[in-house]
Amino acid sequence: MYSFKNDYIENAHPRILQALADTNMEQDEGYGLDRHSAAAAESIKKYLGADADIHLLCGGTQTNLIALSAFLRPHEAIIAAETAHICVHETGAIEATGHKILAVPASGGGAPTGKLRPEDIQKVLDLHTDEHMVKPRLVKISNSTEIGSVYSLEELEALSRFCGERNLLLYADGARLASALVASGVTLSDMRRLTDAFYIGGTKNGALLGEALVIGRDSLKEDFRYHIKQKGGLLAKGRVLGVQFEELFRDGLLFSLARHANAMARKIAQAISAAGYGFLTDSPSNQIFPILPDALIEKLQKNWAFYVWQKMGEGRSAIRIVTSWATKEEAVDEFAGAVGPCTP
Amino acid sequence: MYSFKNDYIENAHPRILQALADTNMEQDEGYGLDRHSAAAAESIKKYLGADADIHLLCGGTQTNLIALSAFLRPHEAIIAAETAHICVHETGAIEATGHKILAVPASGGGAPTGKLRPEDIQKVLDLHTDEHMVKPRLVKISNSTEIGSVYSLEELEALSRFCGERNLLLYADGARLASALVASGVTLSDMRRLTDAFYIGGTKNGALLGEALVIGRDSLKEDFRYHIKQKGGLLAKGRVLGVQFEELFRDGLLFSLARHANAMARKIAQAISAAGYGFLTDSPSNQIFPILPDALIEKLQKNWAFYVWQKMGEGRSAIRIVTSWATKEEAVDEFAGAVGPCTP
Amino acid sequence: MYSFKNDYIENAHPRILQALADTNMEQDEGYGLDRHSAAAAESIKKYLGADADIHLLCGGTQTNLIALSAFLRPHEAIIAAETAHICVHETGAIEATGHKILAVPASGGGAPTGKLRPEDIQKVLDLHTDEHMVKPRLVKISNSTEIGSVYSLEELEALSRFCGERNLLLYADGARLASALVASGVTLSDMRRLTDAFYIGGTKNGALLGEALVIGRDSLKEDFRYHIKQKGGLLAKGRVLGVQFEELFRDGLLFSLARHANAMARKIAQAISAAGYGFLTDSPSNQIFPILPDALIEKLQKNWAFYVWQKMGEGRSAIRIVTSWATKEEAVDEFAGAVGPCTP
Amino acid sequence: MYSFKNDYIENAHPRILQALADTNMEQDEGYGLDRHSAAAAESIKKYLGADADIHLLCGGTQTNLIALSAFLRPHEAIIAAETAHICVHETGAIEATGHKILAVPASGGGAPTGKLRPEDIQKVLDLHTDEHMVKPRLVKISNSTEIGSVYSLEELEALSRFCGERNLLLYADGARLASALVASGVTLSDMRRLTDAFYIGGTKNGALLGEALVIGRDSLKEDFRYHIKQKGGLLAKGRVLGVQFEELFRDGLLFSLARHANAMARKIAQAISAAGYGFLTDSPSNQIFPILPDALIEKLQKNWAFYVWQKMGEGRSAIRIVTSWATKEEAVDEFAGAVGPCTP
Repeated sequence: MYSFKNDYIENAHPRILQALADTNMEQDEGYGLDRHSAAAAESIKKYLGADADIHLLCGGTQTNLIALSAFLRPHEAIIAAETAHICVHETGAIEATGHKILAVPASGGGAPTGKLRPEDIQKVLDLHTDEHMVKPRLVKISNSTEIGSVYSLEELEALSRFCGERNLLLYADGARLASALVASGVTLSDMRRLTDAFYIGGTKNGALLGEALVIGRDSLKEDFRYHIKQKGGLLAKGRVLGVQFEELFRDGLLFSLARHANAMARKIAQAISAAGYGFLTDSPSNQIFPILPDALIEKLQKNWAFYVWQKMGEGRSAIRIVTSWATKEEAVDEFAGAVGPCTP
Repeated sequence: MYSFKNDYIENAHPRILQALADTNMEQDEGYGLDRHSAAAAESIKKYLGADADIHLLCGGTQTNLIALSAFLRPHEAIIAAETAHICVHETGAIEATGHKILAVPASGGGAPTGKLRPEDIQKVLDLHTDEHMVKPRLVKISNSTEIGSVYSLEELEALSRFCGERNLLLYADGARLASALVASGVTLSDMRRLTDAFYIGGTKNGALLGEALVIGRDSLKEDFRYHIKQKGGLLAKGRVLGVQFEELFRDGLLFSLARHANAMARKIAQAISAAGYGFLTDSPSNQIFPILPDALIEKLQKNWAFYVWQKMGEGRSAIRIVTSWATKEEAVDEFAGAVGPCTP
Repeated sequence: MYSFKNDYIENAHPRILQALADTNMEQDEGYGLDRHSAAAAESIKKYLGADADIHLLCGGTQTNLIALSAFLRPHEAIIAAETAHICVHETGAIEATGHKILAVPASGGGAPTGKLRPEDIQKVLDLHTDEHMVKPRLVKISNSTEIGSVYSLEELEALSRFCGERNLLLYADGARLASALVASGVTLSDMRRLTDAFYIGGTKNGALLGEALVIGRDSLKEDFRYHIKQKGGLLAKGRVLGVQFEELFRDGLLFSLARHANAMARKIAQAISAAGYGFLTDSPSNQIFPILPDALIEKLQKNWAFYVWQKMGEGRSAIRIVTSWATKEEAVDEFAGAVGPCTP
Repeated sequence: MYSFKNDYIENAHPRILQALADTNMEQDEGYGLDRHSAAAAESIKKYLGADADIHLLCGGTQTNLIALSAFLRPHEAIIAAETAHICVHETGAIEATGHKILAVPASGGGAPTGKLRPEDIQKVLDLHTDEHMVKPRLVKISNSTEIGSVYSLEELEALSRFCGERNLLLYADGARLASALVASGVTLSDMRRLTDAFYIGGTKNGALLGEALVIGRDSLKEDFRYHIKQKGGLLAKGRVLGVQFEELFRDGLLFSLARHANAMARKIAQAISAAGYGFLTDSPSNQIFPILPDALIEKLQKNWAFYVWQKMGEGRSAIRIVTSWATKEEAVDEFAGAVGPCTP
């Protein structure tokens, strides 16, 4: 049984483990003030083309809740796609810090895209006009989105301009950012320029754990380490994160891992297309959602693990296939082979 | 320069790193539902002599804030020693979840002991009598305490009985629990029997990161994983913690690491005593607080790093020396040698 | 200019003011422990047909936030209609206490009704299945709803049964409860029997301020006064509320005031129907939402104040007309007269 | 039985009730946007000698929790005297909004004074130096204090200067402000000049309910009404508060009521002094704490109600006597007469 269930099925890329072993017995400062965390931050900044504060954190939900609660005053709210991880799959982590999320259908007027557009946000602004309602203050996007789609540079530029004009902060959840950037050609420097803050996911791209939060906007930087500590995110052995991100940014490892994951997903997607099947969403990243006959799904489940995402009717369902830095090409080839030609 | 500043200066015991490497490419479930987290829980339970729920978390502040906010209703408060980590060094993490901490001087009527006694708690209960005040509901101790002292079995039994009689929960912060247990002869089974919940620190005792929360009281168990997720503590690659605790409990590694740390601290303490100096607190664990002449401190600082804890007047100060599983015996011997005989 | 904008435009019924004057200089206990608050609670209980805890609070948002945060554990969520006051018009008051609201379209499959049905709730339950999502625990309805509709006895019984079977609490926001009860024939005793807690609005029905929270379910009663105090809801001169509710429940004043408000709304509604116009929602209570030509609305606005609720297209809009205990019949007659016959 | 237990024993001054009756049936805007709230704000501003935002709220705990949570970021803490109402008697209301209070012994080095001095605050600042601890940001004083003492102009000026130099906000809880100002000669204009925000208590000085929050510092003003609404403090019939404060500031009623309360307290205090007894605290305001023989206390309790505050040993206790705008001079004379000459 080979699993395509998620991109955190295996642990870390061997270079990450090796770097941890190599630096294991150095004595260094705690709480992220060590040389490796500093070096990781410097390496990341080289990609940004502008200054920023970098904080290394443990996971996506943690990063989101620390960042958003630090950035907002109590009455300020977040606008997010209704499919966003913070809306659905973080057990109310954001609300637990006191903030409402204003969920927006993200469909571009048709099938779900997972992406926010200026016009979607404007509708929320139009409805929130006085102190009886929360005050929309921050737009949260995910790139790639929870359904595999990615933002183009033009889409990000439109969002950034729109938010700037309306005094809204723009924040990007980057749990799978490297996969999105590799797929879209958007760069970390674009992300720095077009958002107020975003994070670069490590957990789902070769690290044991770890996300690198990048705060570009000056007014959001002050006292941020207090918030990390208060929310339980400051590791005593902070360099566990530092060493990993130092390695992920050495020779562009982060991006080559994402490229592999995307390539594996493409290979499966092409086989599925060639077999005559379609997809629930338009995804160039490492998560794809093919729509297959239930009989075929049942057959595939004997040898491969994956989630059945949504019943589509007429004996078909959408499944979710996720690849990662660790996905083996032979496994992909076998799976692709098992998806026979589409016989309606 | 050799550092005695803390027990998170180095990273992980080599067996921990090896275990991570050995299991690295297994495909397994995420979010702590993997085989290693399950095996770690089973290993821990064997020491408890009774059933319990085990949850693996990332750090001490995180564990404290998740556990306490899950255990309490909004109006319920925590009683803790005024030297407790949650009172002083967690950036208001507990208050950020909405709960007041009632801080109690922990001095046993004389010098600070860091330990709570039933009579200390009773004073708080006497003052909190109606709905204009918070309702004391949980007593939080640290074992070992923040100043190195440890609870004897008799002290724990007295606290446990007292809390039981007054409908108070008893919770123990065990960031340095193994060091305390090894020093006092108290066992994990005693901890399970005498508290409602406690945690076993990994970060400060050989792990990269990780604390094992043990919930013994049935009424505190329900839905606990929701709280972990909501507060950002559920690692996608949860087995990073599972593998580590599996190893820490294999052949009692956890305890042998603590024994080494304590032995190193004893060796330094004996040298200091032999040289005629005294201590700020009575500590049999891996943190000691010798009181030394400032001139000697200055001299020692040239070769060793440690914190100066408190000015004591008359040209003397208390310093903090912390040892760990990784402390080298040669370094200890050199340091002991450098503490000359006391010449008043 | 006569206003139909809201039911809190005028202050208190004269009997309320008289009762406050009559008892003004009595010396009594503070914080709601006075004889009038006790007498008010006894009067209310006579209507309930069962025991309950009664707490007198200042306003609707305050009552909702205190009750819901007291009733729920941190990871538990509320299910409410997307038109509910707590979803839209309380500035995120519930989220500020840490809880997510799961908003449900309340349309009965067609036009908005503002009312929840078991099948609406079941859909939410079906989606929330594990600890990555909040745990639905409490269903919150408003009676009357924010768009004037009221629950029938059958609808309440179905909801109550459904919630009981699924371990969900049922809570009713009764800012305009008396109007709903008078319109539907449902009694306070029904409300007590069919919900776990609800409140009886005073502010919008003749009081200066005040809502009476009725907690029927035993497990929700404990320590409730702590929560009131903690959230700033415990008035030092609590009998300001006690005297008012004592009077509102003397001779059924509460209900006769609601009957007047409803009658005034009916009179206007009949004139509007007779003139050939329709309504946005089906409302037998003191809020109605006629759909009128924009030209007529503009004409009416010269002499009467009311909110334009929603553009309906084709030169028509829905307006909101609210009547109260204080609405003058002559004003109603004049307004009714000004709504000419419908000429398409 | 005549009661000196508190200053909220009776309800409102008759002029307040009359004003409510006179304006009862006017139709006006809701939520504090009415003409009376506006007029009250204008009247108050005339006393301030500078611009400010005025918000009318329901009670002291509510005002404190709304103001402090609106003024602070999540990691920022409050410094207050350990006898302060927010530390002891608000059921953790401030902590429930997420903020830690750093309690300071307020003794001026000797007996408790209830007052903070710059040197008390400096000690807290010295201890809070990095992100492992909360960040002290706001100093909260009460004037008069919870034990009857009042701040002199010089003391306020010293605090104000100190806070200004250290980037600390200064906020005054004024539940009994009028009594303090009348006793000390400090003016509302001084309060406006020397603090960043403070409130003027109505509840304990002749109103049914109501406190007027004065925000002087521009950076604290933005969006404040959102916070009031979110925390349940925005009354639908806001003019209930407006009418009362309009009347309290007509012809200086607020101050003449406080003058009466203070005079009644002085009369009792003088009788007690003349009889040879002393006091627990130095109070020129409407709360006094005489130390009397227990036998005398027992005798007095037959005819008068008051709190026994503290056992003093040697058969003596401190009691608390509180006077108000409504205290009858005959009652005071009778009580004074019953305190016989001191016979040791």
